[in-house]
Amino acid sequence: MPTPPTPTPTSTTLADRAAALDAADALAHVRDRFLLPEGVVYLDGNSLGALPAAVPAAVEDAVHRQWGTDLIRSWNANGWWEAPVRTGDAIGRLVGAAPGQVVAGDSTSVQLFNTLLAAARLRPGRRLLLTDPDHFPTDQYIADSVGRLLGLDVRRVPAREAAAVLAAEGPDVAVAAYAPVDYRTGELHDMAALTAAAHAAGALVHWDLCHAAGALPVRLDAIGADFAVGCGYKYLSGGPGAPAFGYVAHRHQAEFDHPLTGWHGHAEPFAMSGAYAPAPGITRARIGTPPLLSLIALEAALTAYEGVDMEALRAKSLSLTGFFQECADSLLDGLGFTMATPREPARRGSQVALRHPEAYPLIAALTARGVIGDMRAPDLLRFGFNALYLTHADVLHAVGELRSIVTSGAHLAAEHQQRPTVT
Amino acid sequence: MPTPPTPTPTSTTLADRAAALDAADALAHVRDRFLLPEGVVYLDGNSLGALPAAVPAAVEDAVHRQWGTDLIRSWNANGWWEAPVRTGDAIGRLVGAAPGQVVAGDSTSVQLFNTLLAAARLRPGRRLLLTDPDHFPTDQYIADSVGRLLGLDVRRVPAREAAAVLAAEGPDVAVAAYAPVDYRTGELHDMAALTAAAHAAGALVHWDLCHAAGALPVRLDAIGADFAVGCGYKYLSGGPGAPAFGYVAHRHQAEFDHPLTGWHGHAEPFAMSGAYAPAPGITRARIGTPPLLSLIALEAALTAYEGVDMEALRAKSLSLTGFFQECADSLLDGLGFTMATPREPARRGSQVALRHPEAYPLIAALTARGVIGDMRAPDLLRFGFNALYLTHADVLHAVGELRSIVTSGAHLAAEHQQRPTVT
Repeated sequence: MPTPPTPTPTSTTLADRAAALDAADALAHVRDRFLLPEGVVYLDGNSLGALPAAVPAAVEDAVHRQWGTDLIRSWNANGWWEAPVRTGDAIGRLVGAAPGQVVAGDSTSVQLFNTLLAAARLRPGRRLLLTDPDHFPTDQYIADSVGRLLGLDVRRVPAREAAAVLAAEGPDVAVAAYAPVDYRTGELHDMAALTAAAHAAGALVHWDLCHAAGALPVRLDAIGADFAVGCGYKYLSGGPGAPAFGYVAHRHQAEFDHPLTGWHGHAEPFAMSGAYAPAPGITRARIGTPPLLSLIALEAALTAYEGVDMEALRAKSLSLTGFFQECADSLLDGLGFTMATPREPARRGSQVALRHPEAYPLIAALTARGVIGDMRAPDLLRFGFNALYLTHADVLHAVGELRSIVTSGAHLAAEHQQRPTVT
Repeated sequence: MPTPPTPTPTSTTLADRAAALDAADALAHVRDRFLLPEGVVYLDGNSLGALPAAVPAAVEDAVHRQWGTDLIRSWNANGWWEAPVRTGDAIGRLVGAAPGQVVAGDSTSVQLFNTLLAAARLRPGRRLLLTDPDHFPTDQYIADSVGRLLGLDVRRVPAREAAAVLAAEGPDVAVAAYAPVDYRTGELHDMAALTAAAHAAGALVHWDLCHAAGALPVRLDAIGADFAVGCGYKYLSGGPGAPAFGYVAHRHQAEFDHPLTGWHGHAEPFAMSGAYAPAPGITRARIGTPPLLSLIALEAALTAYEGVDMEALRAKSLSLTGFFQECADSLLDGLGFTMATPREPARRGSQVALRHPEAYPLIAALTARGVIGDMRAPDLLRFGFNALYLTHADVLHAVGELRSIVTSGAHLAAEHQQRPTVT
């Protein structure tokens, strides 16, 4: 039997704080747009977002009526052909991109390859591709692959040092490929400053928005971003393996010269010409036939953002993550945890990571109690906060359970020692 | 009001023939594994397969229970992580590939790029990439992209001439990239002969199985194929934009050096290393996170093949396409049609194409009467035959309606003149 949470002097105060914060939450009603399982506090929406309530009916319609009954006619009758750009525009509204610059489809890895290689081709003669040694692995692998194909040196420079390298070696840099949010610690970097530093050097910037899109305001157009990609299944809650997206700024579209020249990006795809002639606009960034069931789920999921102001979402997100840090300070003090995520709001994405030497069994034990976060080797407990559906009461409950587990040693039980194969 | 089909001297005979052939159909029971709309004869399964009856429940479970309730835990609990290779193996059974050589995921265009570039890297120093000027456009575009990146000349040589070019210039050829079935005419090429010719020249062969997989027996292992890709949404009936697949023969896997080095192909994806170390086996051909709703639909769709012998399927397919040609000979004689598809069974895939100068309005008028085929510019009416769910009565009905339309001039009505944007 798990030991019940140990009361502490501050827990009543924290409960009052949570209740007050939730009572004042202007986005509280949005929680009803998600189908959250009973008895679960879901702090892994940074890995796979919860199921939006609009999705099941949309998918059922896509299966039964669109596919089953309308069959091939759906390409015209049900808007399948336009879905990648239509959904791209819906994502664009969340990342500060005016219509006609975002296309949805394929995986993040594929979007990365396609846009990063195209970006590098726009800066011929420059021999460096900068990326972050703390970038998500696939970003580093794809950067290496692009570098090899184009004969570029891939240099790993931490985000905080990138501006200095761009100032010193700028004329050699073709593209700087970074993420605004560190996927492990949740540290938030200054997109505008790094974009400006790249442009001052004549380089282009490529942003991976996987841990930012839908979580906080992103201003791709306003900061003059060149290229970006992002994920559909994290904060956007588009479903497991939901299509990713790619952003190509209007000013680069006419020269966008990408390697994945699939027929959906052709100017006249149904002329069936043997020579590739790219479509105008963002359409040329389309590749092959998109996975429509997954894409239709993503499009339906995005309706959860209707009427949600991204600044209000950011304020709630910071309130949730800040409150998590406050709860951790109170309830986990002296229990072996350290805070990996910056405390300054301007340097914090929408997640909080704690370090603890027993991270794996702690996350396993939390999951067994219905508090779902995840872990990153070797010692990070990672909690993501989707402000569309989480409450401050959820946050307090999660930290309280973590305290209960670590003080009782519940995580030392054999069943929590086996590392899951996938998280 | 459409004019009813005009009786002809042979139509009664043909009806008797259809009834007899359907009565003797050993695969007739398989039709019940599909949810076919009432009043429709669906001859476009070569473009988008009909909805298998097993799919709706599988997708609903994926949405509600796996995503909605199990959430991130589904990667372990519901087999999401293994889905691309598990589904790949299920496809492998239909294309003559032993387990561990096929992975499902991404679009055909992406699979093409990844495997074709990797194939060319296995033949360094050879400057030619052969492909078919009649190959589906995306195959040609991707071949050009690969050629450009690797400094290869892409030479377009029709399939029937490829063996001669390989004999003459073989030492210069890195890869020959062909399809067994012409996507327009349905002409079937000899895979074994072309594979042998490529190997005799020291070249590798890359097959696009989009119009063959699930439609007829393919023997990838037996003929010694090197690489292949194929589509999930045509004869496999995996749903709109269903994930494609890639085949890498066992003997090439250790050297498989592909450009799309996404993290799902890493030997230790959750070690989160910054350096790519490819997984052993077919797993290294994985790229990024697959679109699971679409992939789960595809996996469920493949259960329609349970217990179906591919030779029996081929026999029925040839019976359907042969009967279509017989009906066309009888009912469309003198009405402006020519047969584009070979009459010899060994040279025919699972589709029949007719040429007619009014192809577009004819297909539109047929669709309005519930007979769904498609068209390819400028003059092809294209009819695909999925022998899992079609009958000879369907075939006769379709040709009868086409006769009725062309003899009555029904296709000349204004509503059939507008060319659809997508087919």
